[in-house]
Amino acid sequence: MKAILVIADGMGDWPLKQLNGKTPLEAAEKPNLDFLAKHGICGIMDPLAPGIPPGSDVAHLAILGYNAKKVYTGRGALEAIGFGIEVLPGDICFRCNFATVDDNLTVIDRRAGRISTEDASKLAKDLEKIYLHDHPEAEITFRNTVQHRAILRIRAPSLSMMVSDSDPHGVGKKVLRVHSLKHTPEADKTARIVNEVLEKFHEVLKNHPVNEERVKKGLPPANIILCRGAGVLPKINPFPLKFGLRAAAVAVMPLVRGVCKVAGMRILDAPGATGGYDTDVISKAKTALEALENEDFVLIHVKATDLASHDAKIEKKIEMIEKVDRMVGYLIDNVNEEETYIAVTADHTTSSVLKEHTGDPVPVALWGPYVRTDDVEEYSERSCARGGLGRIRGRDLMHTIANMLGKMRKFGA
Amino acid sequence: MKAILVIADGMGDWPLKQLNGKTPLEAAEKPNLDFLAKHGICGIMDPLAPGIPPGSDVAHLAILGYNAKKVYTGRGALEAIGFGIEVLPGDICFRCNFATVDDNLTVIDRRAGRISTEDASKLAKDLEKIYLHDHPEAEITFRNTVQHRAILRIRAPSLSMMVSDSDPHGVGKKVLRVHSLKHTPEADKTARIVNEVLEKFHEVLKNHPVNEERVKKGLPPANIILCRGAGVLPKINPFPLKFGLRAAAVAVMPLVRGVCKVAGMRILDAPGATGGYDTDVISKAKTALEALENEDFVLIHVKATDLASHDAKIEKKIEMIEKVDRMVGYLIDNVNEEETYIAVTADHTTSSVLKEHTGDPVPVALWGPYVRTDDVEEYSERSCARGGLGRIRGRDLMHTIANMLGKMRKFGA
Repeated sequence: MKAILVIADGMGDWPLKQLNGKTPLEAAEKPNLDFLAKHGICGIMDPLAPGIPPGSDVAHLAILGYNAKKVYTGRGALEAIGFGIEVLPGDICFRCNFATVDDNLTVIDRRAGRISTEDASKLAKDLEKIYLHDHPEAEITFRNTVQHRAILRIRAPSLSMMVSDSDPHGVGKKVLRVHSLKHTPEADKTARIVNEVLEKFHEVLKNHPVNEERVKKGLPPANIILCRGAGVLPKINPFPLKFGLRAAAVAVMPLVRGVCKVAGMRILDAPGATGGYDTDVISKAKTALEALENEDFVLIHVKATDLASHDAKIEKKIEMIEKVDRMVGYLIDNVNEEETYIAVTADHTTSSVLKEHTGDPVPVALWGPYVRTDDVEEYSERSCARGGLGRIRGRDLMHTIANMLGKMRKFGA
Repeated sequence: MKAILVIADGMGDWPLKQLNGKTPLEAAEKPNLDFLAKHGICGIMDPLAPGIPPGSDVAHLAILGYNAKKVYTGRGALEAIGFGIEVLPGDICFRCNFATVDDNLTVIDRRAGRISTEDASKLAKDLEKIYLHDHPEAEITFRNTVQHRAILRIRAPSLSMMVSDSDPHGVGKKVLRVHSLKHTPEADKTARIVNEVLEKFHEVLKNHPVNEERVKKGLPPANIILCRGAGVLPKINPFPLKFGLRAAAVAVMPLVRGVCKVAGMRILDAPGATGGYDTDVISKAKTALEALENEDFVLIHVKATDLASHDAKIEKKIEMIEKVDRMVGYLIDNVNEEETYIAVTADHTTSSVLKEHTGDPVPVALWGPYVRTDDVEEYSERSCARGGLGRIRGRDLMHTIANMLGKMRKFGA
């Protein structure tokens, strides 16, 4: 017995006036999702708990069966791992942005005009050089990833992730000094090192030729690095040990790749999968189906549904849901239905009204040979609420799937 | 107000191909269970949590309102108590099997050909003699129960239940040495004593005349004792104190009798109740109804539904469900319906596909004078999922019943 879990990022939504009171899911044409709902068992799921909006990292940890509140140790390390940057126990990692500030260190653009990866790479190369040989206390690694995104990793004895962000999380606000969130020598030391590093980075970036070039072209200079989300490697019982399942994940988004990697899953690249609106979902499905020949469990993550709701692009969200539907259709048509379960859910609701993650439950459908089907005929936030799974928590879903695969360990005699 | 709780062991199941996609409950003729569903309130219940398969001991602890994760202290002591063997705080008990091994201590038969109780009694008598006077550190008690089953109790200061099994849980595997699961002097000492005892037992059994006789008859010799499930007395707030209810249990299976005994319930024997397919359920009902004259709460446990699913005997399972139905009919006909609640559930799902306990929820129906009835008309896994109780946990059920009896203590002012 095998299983595929599809997680459409932020697919849940609120009923919208623009859709005559329908949610994007209710407004979309989604025959394959409806097929799963009709022939499977449905429910609604609170990734964490009713009303609590989760980040995608925390939501994925929960949906993979972990106690997210216990094991979550910040975004930084997960994102670093997701980008393929080595993280060892004790390392502190930050998610960073190339950004633009004025002379008073007030943020003008948090993404330096979504700087090209090419420009960012040139800048990052010179930033990394600074500390190649000569930081007295720590090993400093700085790596740009895509566009304005970057990772800062600090490796030294006795550090702590209990430090604040330098990112003020808004335009027109002054860059913050990193400070310790706990009065320990470790947190104090970490904050001090990070502040030193970021200051030196600012010095180098301020007068860097790449930025002079950018200004000439009328582009905002990437003259500062903002850091946020200090994190360390979480202590996690990996999937093969926890459930006895060989597992893989088809995902593009580094944060999700990072979560899946620490959960002991093989990370797969599907040709043409981009994490954007143009992502090739059929390629994702094909990659997952191929992987399923060797693995027991494959997760497919689709990011674009969430992007659309953060931008309040309602029609785009519907379009992306229909894309997910076609992917699910491809999966249904090509799995061995005697021995395969398919579950579809979202990692959280993203309200197209608030343009933010919200704490509403998300719909779940689980289809496969031995599920106890129910009366639900449509895959949506409201119809799934009447399903046979009832209202479950994120953690329950993976337990429910592993149970159908006969992989849950008995407690007691 | 009084209540009867019927627990049909492993009665929940998966939709089965052999039954055209029905579960055994859905396929069975069960007018009385359906009556309870129709005129009562229904729901589904996760004995522990969604997806987690419980053992019968843990499930019964949960359904009786205890935090099973906290209070469960292993199978050994519960089974010993269930057999009427005295267990005091500090005693370590093991469930044991008479088994057959070859000269290399590889297991050939985990139950010594389901040795007769008569043969096992003769062997046990001689095993117990070894340590009657002369173990330097501990008091060793060994008692056979039914067929290959036995209990080993070790009484000494400073022991620990944190020791492993000698039972390798499979044929063709070598008998294991018991080792400590925690690096404490107590666990080390316990493991050492158990290994000594089991070795001495093996010495005596190897050349025992009863076994020589068995070999002559072509029967597998019971030449070793395998132990498993080290346990101590759980610390439990008994029923009369916890709920202010005088309670009794009609049960045959030692593990369930043990749980009910530590929960402070009187254990009743119904004439003709066997724990097998031939059990006399009407006798069980009569015993329960008689007990209800003096008690507030009576639990009736029926084992045979579970036996059938472990053996994948689907028709037998349906037959046993119909037997439970007749028992429930007898209860309905003979209780004072003005003042009696009847609840029917299972302690877990046993999938006739996997032949194992699974973590699926089980159906619940609660019938009685003041329940808030719902629209459910049939007692089954799927129909009860639409009931007014929703999806509850094992612990919630006893609280719900005690609440209807006006016996739950208020928390707060």
